Amino acid sequence: MKNKVKKIGVMTSGGDSPGMNAAIRAVVRACHYYNVECVGIYRGYEGLIEGDFIKLNARSVSNTINRGGTILKSARSQEFRTKEGRAKAHQNLLNEGIDAMVLIGGDGTFTGGMVFNDEYSFPCIGVPGTIDNDIYGTNFTIGYDTALNTVVDVIDKIRDTASSHNRLFFVEVMGRDAGFIALNAGVGAGAEEILVPEEDLGLDRLLESLKRSKRSGKSSSIVVVAEGDKIGKSVFELANYVEENLPEYEVRVSVLGHMQRGGAPSCFDRVLASRLGVKAVELLLDGKTNLMVGLVDGKIETTDLEKAVKGKHNINRELLRVSDIMSI
Amino acid sequence: MKNKVKKIGVMTSGGDSPGMNAAIRAVVRACHYYNVECVGIYRGYEGLIEGDFIKLNARSVSNTINRGGTILKSARSQEFRTKEGRAKAHQNLLNEGIDAMVLIGGDGTFTGGMVFNDEYSFPCIGVPGTIDNDIYGTNFTIGYDTALNTVVDVIDKIRDTASSHNRLFFVEVMGRDAGFIALNAGVGAGAEEILVPEEDLGLDRLLESLKRSKRSGKSSSIVVVAEGDKIGKSVFELANYVEENLPEYEVRVSVLGHMQRGGAPSCFDRVLASRLGVKAVELLLDGKTNLMVGLVDGKIETTDLEKAVKGKHNINRELLRVSDIMSI
Amino acid sequence: MKNKVKKIGVMTSGGDSPGMNAAIRAVVRACHYYNVECVGIYRGYEGLIEGDFIKLNARSVSNTINRGGTILKSARSQEFRTKEGRAKAHQNLLNEGIDAMVLIGGDGTFTGGMVFNDEYSFPCIGVPGTIDNDIYGTNFTIGYDTALNTVVDVIDKIRDTASSHNRLFFVEVMGRDAGFIALNAGVGAGAEEILVPEEDLGLDRLLESLKRSKRSGKSSSIVVVAEGDKIGKSVFELANYVEENLPEYEVRVSVLGHMQRGGAPSCFDRVLASRLGVKAVELLLDGKTNLMVGLVDGKIETTDLEKAVKGKHNINRELLRVSDIMSI
Amino acid sequence: MKNKVKKIGVMTSGGDSPGMNAAIRAVVRACHYYNVECVGIYRGYEGLIEGDFIKLNARSVSNTINRGGTILKSARSQEFRTKEGRAKAHQNLLNEGIDAMVLIGGDGTFTGGMVFNDEYSFPCIGVPGTIDNDIYGTNFTIGYDTALNTVVDVIDKIRDTASSHNRLFFVEVMGRDAGFIALNAGVGAGAEEILVPEEDLGLDRLLESLKRSKRSGKSSSIVVVAEGDKIGKSVFELANYVEENLPEYEVRVSVLGHMQRGGAPSCFDRVLASRLGVKAVELLLDGKTNLMVGLVDGKIETTDLEKAVKGKHNINRELLRVSDIMSI
Repeated sequence: MKNKVKKIGVMTSGGDSPGMNAAIRAVVRACHYYNVECVGIYRGYEGLIEGDFIKLNARSVSNTINRGGTILKSARSQEFRTKEGRAKAHQNLLNEGIDAMVLIGGDGTFTGGMVFNDEYSFPCIGVPGTIDNDIYGTNFTIGYDTALNTVVDVIDKIRDTASSHNRLFFVEVMGRDAGFIALNAGVGAGAEEILVPEEDLGLDRLLESLKRSKRSGKSSSIVVVAEGDKIGKSVFELANYVEENLPEYEVRVSVLGHMQRGGAPSCFDRVLASRLGVKAVELLLDGKTNLMVGLVDGKIETTDLEKAVKGKHNINRELLRVSDIMSI
Repeated sequence: MKNKVKKIGVMTSGGDSPGMNAAIRAVVRACHYYNVECVGIYRGYEGLIEGDFIKLNARSVSNTINRGGTILKSARSQEFRTKEGRAKAHQNLLNEGIDAMVLIGGDGTFTGGMVFNDEYSFPCIGVPGTIDNDIYGTNFTIGYDTALNTVVDVIDKIRDTASSHNRLFFVEVMGRDAGFIALNAGVGAGAEEILVPEEDLGLDRLLESLKRSKRSGKSSSIVVVAEGDKIGKSVFELANYVEENLPEYEVRVSVLGHMQRGGAPSCFDRVLASRLGVKAVELLLDGKTNLMVGLVDGKIETTDLEKAVKGKHNINRELLRVSDIMSI
Repeated sequence: MKNKVKKIGVMTSGGDSPGMNAAIRAVVRACHYYNVECVGIYRGYEGLIEGDFIKLNARSVSNTINRGGTILKSARSQEFRTKEGRAKAHQNLLNEGIDAMVLIGGDGTFTGGMVFNDEYSFPCIGVPGTIDNDIYGTNFTIGYDTALNTVVDVIDKIRDTASSHNRLFFVEVMGRDAGFIALNAGVGAGAEEILVPEEDLGLDRLLESLKRSKRSGKSSSIVVVAEGDKIGKSVFELANYVEENLPEYEVRVSVLGHMQRGGAPSCFDRVLASRLGVKAVELLLDGKTNLMVGLVDGKIETTDLEKAVKGKHNINRELLRVSDIMSI
Repeated sequence: MKNKVKKIGVMTSGGDSPGMNAAIRAVVRACHYYNVECVGIYRGYEGLIEGDFIKLNARSVSNTINRGGTILKSARSQEFRTKEGRAKAHQNLLNEGIDAMVLIGGDGTFTGGMVFNDEYSFPCIGVPGTIDNDIYGTNFTIGYDTALNTVVDVIDKIRDTASSHNRLFFVEVMGRDAGFIALNAGVGAGAEEILVPEEDLGLDRLLESLKRSKRSGKSSSIVVVAEGDKIGKSVFELANYVEENLPEYEVRVSVLGHMQRGGAPSCFDRVLASRLGVKAVELLLDGKTNLMVGLVDGKIETTDLEKAVKGKHNINRELLRVSDIMSI
């Protein structure tokens, strides 16, 4: 039944990502456009349980499209994993008169939404916001493109000093379960080798490749390593191993860490967030629930939250091949 | 017949765009990988006619992936439009032993390639490099994503001063025939209005919208205008017209101009350029010609050069609607 | 007599500049530190006349140090130039219990402060915030360093396309009366010629220099022009003149405009703003008035507001010489 | 005796810093201007001993002013510490006809120059290029300003995620012996606490300050730590200690590392490098030796190399006080 929805809540949950504010802004403005009230829920499910709400109007989100982080803050909530926690949450929504929610985040965020929807038939639409790009049902998650640019920009800087000193750098980037950032930023930064969780290059092949690189006249090299790479050694262990076995290289390590989550979002992420945020509201107004909105081959598509959580978004293996060809 | 190609020439032609160097690098390294020689042709068809060539090996393109502009330089050639010019060009290719070419550029570049291929059956593959994104057969041209980020970054700066002073800014961006930059950067920058060549908003609606904006409490506004917008007035005339009719606004104009063509390419453009450059070489080695490589729904696809030139790449009209919703 | 001051007002006035928020933050936090109340005055003297005030505490300025523009907004006020306007302003200050003011801005801002201080013996300390660096009594104004980086960054982008196409660019930068931005950003960007208001290079010498540049093998050139350059032609007239007289050059013009006022402030501007803001509060608490704080040879010094307004801050002529040597 | 110098060598040595290329460019162009030959020496003293030289003319340094790293590469040489090494180096200079050198680098670089000058009376002028700003005789070293902006830019990004999650971040920046980067970037980034080698804040005061911060309503905090801070714990030990003692904080660590050495130099660093490079050549032409050029209170001044190496450049203690006031 359409038009039932009168007041939409919006939250960000899990690890923050650049563009979350652009998504919030899109939800708020779409609510305004369709004449529905909008309420911000602070700190994800934690704020939901505490009833930490704020009314949002079109002006509340002025000058936020360009800001990193999330104005609604984010958190991980243990209590929402309990039935009591979710009961409190539901009661707060009833009290506030919120009758549907847009959930911006990743796997954990969507899982929460699914369970909650199951138990209380509460309409929820998910918007994929995470830098890791590891969500099934969308080619791109909000924040991923910005993170790639951040990583590439930093490796450009590291390359300046690497090539001035003829050094080999191991650069660790985010991605515990997925190599999207490592693979794409690695190709973008012109890395000599890229280690991803999806493929076990093996230590021997790494050494071989670095030796060949040296022989071919390369005086400096960058190896990009995803946090969760398959070799199963920390980036520092890797660096030591290579230094021991290839004494001709002076090796350095750089762990990029949390800076990858911040910064002004790229144009791509702002546009993506705007499109997905609007669509999420329209779906709720249309009586839909339990779906994630995503960008598939340039079009906005929906996926069941369950599929989005359980499905596997695979890296582009053609790009591994391109990387091999480039790293001569 | 495969494997005929032994030496590939590569040129950049027309307006330069960020990522052209990444595409050149990909062509060079793919040639190396496939054991084919590679020759750089300076200044597009002009250099081709003059025989201004340089041998390129894998090391020639070290540390270029992150650099704007084109190391092969670019130009527009009148002489190549004559039969004599093309004959000279062909002779130079024969003399140099080049038996196939990768042409990086836009419409004009591809038209040249088509004619040349027709007259001399010389194998040519096109790679779309232009910031305007106005090429049929690819969702994204090389340089477009970077230009969007440049524009959004500049408008973010302009917004700082616009909102400090409660001003209305008209910002002109590139796009004589296509509104891709205006539309996407406009949405990304949170513009209140976006004027594109594809749609005639009309002066009245612009005034109406700005009045409504003012009433709704907005104290500053940004209007993004494509060079070739439909209203048919220069951005300065537009600004004057609005200032006369809406004296409550203090109006300023900013024409972004050529800075949009420069700068370090974004990760997206570097990856795109790498993929397309490799594919272009592989197609030539595979005996193909007269095609453009492009990115269609995430996959590398080919299009006849003629179609690429004559086809129309349309802006996303859904995004015009999103823009309307956002600009409340 | 010390300790009289119990409540300090702070405003930004005139053209905004990056780092104004860092200065406001420093004033607010210094007030907190010294246990004095702090009130923000919106839109400079205009807000002062209208009584548009806001209480500011230490938290009000969280996460503002990195933001361009001014959270207190800025304006130019005609009414404050009248005795009646100033009487209203004074009455508002009395009503609010504000007994001293920090004025962040440039010449016009300080002139207002001086007159007001004369008529009402109202304690005022000026903080130099303008991108033009044209204030006597400080080596650097807040925002100047950021503007230099913005200009240099844009010219780097323009150079990419200039050198890809062998073009000559005229780039107009801000500076109606002073060539600080043109001279320093010109040297920083490696400009071939720099035209400043302080020196009449003359059209002939410009042509001569560009010819020599061409002969020496330079294929592209950048000429940086201050808005108020001495030759007395607009940058477009200059470009036309050169194109007519040096047909070997393809000439383009870029007017950078208001983007120069925006953006996240550089570290230098943030530190400068923090130091000057603290000092301004300490001076007021110390019973001082009618002074501007500035950075002179690395130390915070004070200058009479009158001197600051009437004195002339001269560009570094040694740097003109360095520019000549560099532009071979 | 003037005018003896006919051919000047230039090298970069030690840790690289942004702006070194701008300094090389200035030396090369000043040589051209004064009609003296210029030779680049690769990889500092190592290349000097190996005779790894390259002729540089005005065009050799085109489009380098904006590039990080050093086109002459850098290295640390053990062999130059031996008398034999220096004898080889001297012989290479004689063979090449180089009769004076400009040495761009830090303490180690200048020490080498001093010894060499002593033993062979070979004219050497030092130019301070290091991001650490720890050289006596100049207010600013080349690269320091850029490093500050890099650090502040990264901490801005980290703050996005810190404040979205109410976290406490320990950010380690470069500076083994000097707290310049930590102190200035810390103030610029709005850090709550700054730990520098020059002052032992003590663990208790750190805890106390963080507790107070929390009580005052701060939900996130950044502590900037110089590599060589006085507390004598690694940044990870510090973080653990705080997490154990202040369980209300969720603590994260980020070690910025080598990215601080790279990147396009800021305008300030480019201008500084241009001025110092020109002056270094002029001093050599003027028969001077064993001096370092520096910027002191806005003017180019010289200091004996020995003093530059042995003297202590102190951080600005007023700024520690400003930091205290700001971090409420």
